[in-house]
Amino acid sequence: MQRIDYPSLIQELIRELRRMPGIGPRSAERIALWIVQRKEARANQIAEAILKTVSGIRSCVRCGFFSEADQCAICSDSGRDADSLCVVEQPTDILSLERSGVFRGLYHSLGGRLSPLDHIGPEDLRIDSLVRRVKEHQFQEVIFALSLDVEGEATLSYLGELLKLEGVNITRIAQGLPAGSGLETADELTLARAFSGRTLLQRGS
Amino acid sequence: MQRIDYPSLIQELIRELRRMPGIGPRSAERIALWIVQRKEARANQIAEAILKTVSGIRSCVRCGFFSEADQCAICSDSGRDADSLCVVEQPTDILSLERSGVFRGLYHSLGGRLSPLDHIGPEDLRIDSLVRRVKEHQFQEVIFALSLDVEGEATLSYLGELLKLEGVNITRIAQGLPAGSGLETADELTLARAFSGRTLLQRGS
Repeated sequence: MQRIDYPSLIQELIRELRRMPGIGPRSAERIALWIVQRKEARANQIAEAILKTVSGIRSCVRCGFFSEADQCAICSDSGRDADSLCVVEQPTDILSLERSGVFRGLYHSLGGRLSPLDHIGPEDLRIDSLVRRVKEHQFQEVIFALSLDVEGEATLSYLGELLKLEGVNITRIAQGLPAGSGLETADELTLARAFSGRTLLQRGS
Repeated sequence: MQRIDYPSLIQELIRELRRMPGIGPRSAERIALWIVQRKEARANQIAEAILKTVSGIRSCVRCGFFSEADQCAICSDSGRDADSLCVVEQPTDILSLERSGVFRGLYHSLGGRLSPLDHIGPEDLRIDSLVRRVKEHQFQEVIFALSLDVEGEATLSYLGELLKLEGVNITRIAQGLPAGSGLETADELTLARAFSGRTLLQRGS
């Protein structure tokens, strides 16, 4: 008598679902059975939503935020304050700041931070386009909202050096965030306080 | 200035993911962002696994278990004990029993239980095929392993009446205390059933 388990298609689906963040073996099995038993309609819609999102979402050519067009909703909004540029690591950081409502300017997502150990150097980040934007637009202020850990600090210091020549005011958000954490774990109040407490890093000439 | 949120494709994906069991708004957002940021490869594989499973898994024509062919791995296994038939509600119940290793016979999944409030009557369940199987095969025993609630009991009594004419032994799995639990956690109904179902340990002289 052979040992009985799910048919291999279901086992494969469970394996795939387990790759998703926060999904353990039990949840993956529960979701797979839900998919098999609901059949057709619902599950196909989920698969389609995944495929449509993967093919339809790109990075805004200007700031790096998620977008369905060349330029994202923020960069194409003429009502934003074009005098301030906020530099973040990830496109998700932009949404965290938007939800806190403390900033009305434009953004620039680096797509990560300098991390020699992970072989991430300046050429892997959207640094060239940042320098170009700062050169081309007369921003009153460039605000850095990077993680407050070693790599974030290293990235900040590297970029500060790089932008020194442009004569723009450079600030960083206040040390209101708990050390070692990133933007994605901060609540809105902490973010707001960090924002309003930002300190001058370099005065423009 | 417009309120910024994720592009609508991502919002739609989050809505779809939230339909899956055990996935709340935060997990759905986390998974959606993981899909967007990993892009291509991984996410497409998940979507494909969903589509392949939905189209490739059917119900075994004989017992109702999950299968990739007309007949499932259990029904096509000649090494099973063909004298015993175990009747369960859901195909997932079959796997629970298989994993416990207590039963080596054949199964029949009803696909649910009688539930007038949910408009589920005998014609919605795999009852005709159960009666046909019992008529055609000379089972030594038909074991009912249904839920121990009102609807499970109603289904059991309905099927018991229906199979009476076939002259087959009909049993039901025991009711009593779950393994590892004590008297103090058992409800009154469970205690009463455990008591009335007591088994002889030693016969007195």
